[in-house]
Amino acid sequence: MSLSNKSTSSNSQDVKQVVSEQNVNQTALAGLLSSYHELNPSCVDELHEEPSALEFMRYVARNRPFVVRGAAVDWKAFLKWDAEYLLNTMGSEKINVAITPFGNADAVVFQGNIPVFIKPYETSEAFDQALGYIQQQEDSGQGQSEVKYLQTQNDNLRNEYEMLFADVPKSIPFARIALEQQHPDAVNFWLGNSHSVTSLHKDNYENVYVQIRGQKHFVLLSPVETACVNEKPLPAATYERRHTTESSGEVALSLRIDELAEKVPVAIWDPDAPDHNATPMSHLAQPLRVTLNEGDMLYLPALWYHKVSQSCGNQGYCCAVNYWYDMDFGGDFWAASKFIRDVALQTADK
Amino acid sequence: MSLSNKSTSSNSQDVKQVVSEQNVNQTALAGLLSSYHELNPSCVDELHEEPSALEFMRYVARNRPFVVRGAAVDWKAFLKWDAEYLLNTMGSEKINVAITPFGNADAVVFQGNIPVFIKPYETSEAFDQALGYIQQQEDSGQGQSEVKYLQTQNDNLRNEYEMLFADVPKSIPFARIALEQQHPDAVNFWLGNSHSVTSLHKDNYENVYVQIRGQKHFVLLSPVETACVNEKPLPAATYERRHTTESSGEVALSLRIDELAEKVPVAIWDPDAPDHNATPMSHLAQPLRVTLNEGDMLYLPALWYHKVSQSCGNQGYCCAVNYWYDMDFGGDFWAASKFIRDVALQTADK
Ligand SMILES: O=C(O)CCC(=O)C(=O)O
Ligand SMILES: O=C(O)CCC(=O)C(=O)O
Repeated sequence: MSLSNKSTSSNSQDVKQVVSEQNVNQTALAGLLSSYHELNPSCVDELHEEPSALEFMRYVARNRPFVVRGAAVDWKAFLKWDAEYLLNTMGSEKINVAITPFGNADAVVFQGNIPVFIKPYETSEAFDQALGYIQQQEDSGQGQSEVKYLQTQNDNLRNEYEMLFADVPKSIPFARIALEQQHPDAVNFWLGNSHSVTSLHKDNYENVYVQIRGQKHFVLLSPVETACVNEKPLPAATYERRHTTESSGEVALSLRIDELAEKVPVAIWDPDAPDHNATPMSHLAQPLRVTLNEGDMLYLPALWYHKVSQSCGNQGYCCAVNYWYDMDFGGDFWAASKFIRDVALQTADK
Repeated sequence: MSLSNKSTSSNSQDVKQVVSEQNVNQTALAGLLSSYHELNPSCVDELHEEPSALEFMRYVARNRPFVVRGAAVDWKAFLKWDAEYLLNTMGSEKINVAITPFGNADAVVFQGNIPVFIKPYETSEAFDQALGYIQQQEDSGQGQSEVKYLQTQNDNLRNEYEMLFADVPKSIPFARIALEQQHPDAVNFWLGNSHSVTSLHKDNYENVYVQIRGQKHFVLLSPVETACVNEKPLPAATYERRHTTESSGEVALSLRIDELAEKVPVAIWDPDAPDHNATPMSHLAQPLRVTLNEGDMLYLPALWYHKVSQSCGNQGYCCAVNYWYDMDFGGDFWAASKFIRDVALQTADK
């Protein structure tokens, strides 16, 4: 809200009230952040075996993440998913590939001064070709060419990658029992290299994420930290492959605004560049950082903001599996989280 | 906030903003209430046996109440606590009695136009005398004399009423296991008649409440409904017994303001008189009502507002036991509930 000095004495009272109302919401939001951080540890709990359903439910009740080190070391996937096995199993099966110029799928890019939310170019390729490309790019360190990420997030492990699904549990026992869901809503397969970064976002799901090859680096923010992430309704855009000139055979990725798409709120603050696009609250965030090594499992609670990057070791690819269980919209968690976000958005608007 | 018409054209923009900011918080609070009510049942779940620790934890996670019909029908207390047994066991043991003129302990009373928060006159009496008084008052229907309630809420069943503690479980198994607390923080004994009403308030405890004799009528409001209950910081007062005139031997209860006591926020809206002391949000409350019959158990989740009244049947007294377990201040529940209350209080201030 802009407050000029032009107010006459007759309205200075009103103007003070405007300022104080805005302050009051900001004070309440700051109080929320400080009490949350006082009452909660500043790191992710580490377990060394899977929790029981009851132990898990205690984490769900608190909406707090944990990592189970080595939870998947007995999984067939952990024992077998080397490149050779993946190639033998998937061969030249057609699969969906997300392609971006910089590994920035579902990210914010600036068109001049205007931020837009960009979705990857999606196309179909043979699995063996895509894996070869990803590994070769990792080995050569060639970040300048197109970055490919196999990450459709549409239950692809029970569909496109069905042949690999036998190598992982159909469901995660503690989550199945605690959440009373016989099957997860989606089981996703992720394969990429260190050039792909998933930008800060949240999902309406309870997420059990298991690293199979390479490492994943998670940066996590609780839903109560919504006032820190600077969500803005951005125009949506998609990468397209176009010929660089009319005559040439060369193609390059360029951006097309989806004129008809509704604007969706996107977090434009990046906890790894905290001085840019910050809100007055961003410096009060206390991001949790955790790295998953091969065989580790993360419980990422519903509505937590997460940014995810990866490193690949000598296999030239990172690969993971995750289980999305429906979150519980009952009780007060969802309604209260939405309320905090509503107040944060309207306070930022001023 | 009062908005006069005196604002000049130069500041009408600011004034509009004041109004819209206030509206915006009210809209957010109304949105919270409507999404909460859309996503949750409008009645208390009824179980017919005690839940497992895991089932209980699902209720804790949602912060939702339930009642278990007949949960205590095997308890010694349920089988034995008739007047004769109580008198034989407690005899003329001295116990603490809360005395009020109208059964209104911890309630709001008006001193002229000024609301104050009144605490009962507390004194020590022989158990047999107090019980006799309570029963006789109930039988005679004489509401006009002093009302007595045995309700110290200070773990009295493990202290003053120790001789009765053997007749109830030391802890409630599902709560002990789920909440990882070997012993409750307090176990309270309540004995009174239909003239006592406990006014709307909340506690920082997970509460398991068990009715032994008579009926209890609970009116419940979720912590997200805080904007409906009109909490106001009130001066505290206590009932005192004073001689009615200097010379007479007669005593009567009168009110003394505790000048040194800090003002504490007290809910002044009563869901049973919804048109009085209402906030602009009160009509959006959806109070849950549940009656406990003899042997029934209620899980009353932490921070829920509750108003409690009772009826006694032919025994002439109502008697109950409750277990307070520490609530979990971790996770986001406590911090988020406090935030909603902060916004509600400041919006009401305008
Ligand atoms: O692994 C990634 O790149 C992102 C994971 C993610 O966003 C999710 O599991 O929801
Ligand atoms: O039984 C009553 O009168 C009140 C009960 C109560 O407020 C409680 O258990 O916290």
